[in-house]
Amino acid sequence: MAAQPIPSRIPVEELTRFAAEAFEKVGLRQRDARAVGELMAEAEMQGSEGHGMMRLPHYVRRIRAGGVNTQPNIRVVEERAAMALVDGDNGMGHLVMKRAAEIAIAKARSAGSAWVGTRMSNHAGPASLYARMPLAEGMVGIYLAVGSANHLPPWGGLDMLLSTNPIAVAIPTEDEPPVVLDMATTIASMGKVKTKMQRGEPLPEGWMVDRDGRPLTDSKRGFEGLLLPIGGYKGYGLSLVFGLLAGTLNGAAMGKDVVDFNADDVATTNTGQAILAIDPAAFGDPGEFRRRVDTVVRDLRASERMPGVDRIWLPGEQSHLKRVANERDGVPIVPALRASLDKLAGELGIPHLHGGRT
Amino acid sequence: MAAQPIPSRIPVEELTRFAAEAFEKVGLRQRDARAVGELMAEAEMQGSEGHGMMRLPHYVRRIRAGGVNTQPNIRVVEERAAMALVDGDNGMGHLVMKRAAEIAIAKARSAGSAWVGTRMSNHAGPASLYARMPLAEGMVGIYLAVGSANHLPPWGGLDMLLSTNPIAVAIPTEDEPPVVLDMATTIASMGKVKTKMQRGEPLPEGWMVDRDGRPLTDSKRGFEGLLLPIGGYKGYGLSLVFGLLAGTLNGAAMGKDVVDFNADDVATTNTGQAILAIDPAAFGDPGEFRRRVDTVVRDLRASERMPGVDRIWLPGEQSHLKRVANERDGVPIVPALRASLDKLAGELGIPHLHGGRT
Repeated sequence: MAAQPIPSRIPVEELTRFAAEAFEKVGLRQRDARAVGELMAEAEMQGSEGHGMMRLPHYVRRIRAGGVNTQPNIRVVEERAAMALVDGDNGMGHLVMKRAAEIAIAKARSAGSAWVGTRMSNHAGPASLYARMPLAEGMVGIYLAVGSANHLPPWGGLDMLLSTNPIAVAIPTEDEPPVVLDMATTIASMGKVKTKMQRGEPLPEGWMVDRDGRPLTDSKRGFEGLLLPIGGYKGYGLSLVFGLLAGTLNGAAMGKDVVDFNADDVATTNTGQAILAIDPAAFGDPGEFRRRVDTVVRDLRASERMPGVDRIWLPGEQSHLKRVANERDGVPIVPALRASLDKLAGELGIPHLHGGRT
Repeated sequence: MAAQPIPSRIPVEELTRFAAEAFEKVGLRQRDARAVGELMAEAEMQGSEGHGMMRLPHYVRRIRAGGVNTQPNIRVVEERAAMALVDGDNGMGHLVMKRAAEIAIAKARSAGSAWVGTRMSNHAGPASLYARMPLAEGMVGIYLAVGSANHLPPWGGLDMLLSTNPIAVAIPTEDEPPVVLDMATTIASMGKVKTKMQRGEPLPEGWMVDRDGRPLTDSKRGFEGLLLPIGGYKGYGLSLVFGLLAGTLNGAAMGKDVVDFNADDVATTNTGQAILAIDPAAFGDPGEFRRRVDTVVRDLRASERMPGVDRIWLPGEQSHLKRVANERDGVPIVPALRASLDKLAGELGIPHLHGGRT
């Protein structure tokens, strides 16, 4: 009798290997292919499945169609002590944002804080990947991005001129898991909608409405629905200002100019992102800061709970637990995703994903 | 027959005069008293009535009780090219934040961006007052603060360990009103709750719940209710990270340490705030940036509308219209507020508010 194959667990390194081989096959430099593969596997490791391996066939399709530059000259076009503007030359967003984060960290180390924007970038995966990069240096990271397709109208409107424009904030701790908030400014991100679509599951009420304002729960109609912003006009406002800061400020696409990268494999998206790094060492003893954060975390966790609530979670705590488990046991890959990756392997002529079948 | 006195309109300069005289009477330096008065009148001018003159009797009460330092030595305690930490010496929050904003603007002019935090500050009025300060220099302003009383539990919890911790973002435009988002991370701010309390109006459902999770609409019970965060756990996460960045990072109060300044007139609040200024001139032609923002604004405003919607508003547009009208016609002051300011004038022995009675 066959073992239950749903879902199979694949080692993180094997996901990295697979993605890196796919990217190298379609023309990325070996080092770049590996870097993107590592970030996509990390997305899976922390449970961001809507922004992980699921995107690989789509990324490959856009690269093969000429929508993404496989040999980008990613360069700093404006620079001051505490800012830089990075032109990604239409390379993979992961590469552009990794570079932007490195620059922000280096500048924050001397200036105390630094803001780095990108243009001519592309979809880069989950926001928290980049907000987390300053954590490794003991710094705070804040990341903003213009989403890669417009699914949100202005409050009261019908024209989808805005995206789920996310924010991620990562704050270092001493002994607790870092505080990592990663959220779309809509109730649900399109990544979550796409996960439901791929699994054939209905959308929870409150995620989307149709053009008459009625709840839309049929995930097959996900691309025609309007996402709902958090807090009504407040989420609309957050999406707008994050988009102006991550997109318009950098000369990247925003509003009407945003290319729907699901529907269009060829057009340059000119995606914009921004990262802010802040060095707590500039404010005093960074160890004391981290211990004060630990105290706040523990006080919140110890709060009296509403009836029926088992546990108070901190932002990033659930993904931290997934990160630990997935690194140890492998990443759960559902059959539908496995099938699409097998198909991709066949098309590209690279070795199939190993492991996970028992 | 008497003219209808509800509400009377008072010139902005008269509100400034009144507040400045009140503060000088209770011991602030003349220049400081005037500066706080100007900012409180500006709050009224832009329609932030929950954070304007309504707060004056409370501020005066705390000053007279010794809870606020009338002669603060506001000073920079840490500094780098793109950051500063300002110790407010328990002075009025308006003075501390005005200083912090000036420093952020000056540093951003050379470094491209700058982050300035405060500690030992106090309640400073509406968030947008400070986010707007960089606008005058053509810059982007972002402001975060730890609220001055905890009314929000962690998601799923009952202990009120968090506040409405607001964010304001101000973005310059060319011909359009600036984009100015000013929002609590809760559905309603305590300022709005207090305005309802003062007017004896019920709270809209969705603003607050009681400890059993039931909607709380009786504004007389406003101080015992739990505010609801925007987007559920997302608003909880935003309140937490804004509080860690505006409070904990600066060595200011956060979580359990936050003093309820409504209930306690004596304790030092050690309020924390943060402001980020970004100079668009560092990213390219700032005029082009402002015109691109105008384009986004106009595209959003021109969106097709849902049935029953008369107009698409941009963040800050309604307060901009109030600002224009109130500057021209005077600020509407409701009878209950007028009565409390008359009472204050009597107690302090300063001239009553002039004007507005016809």
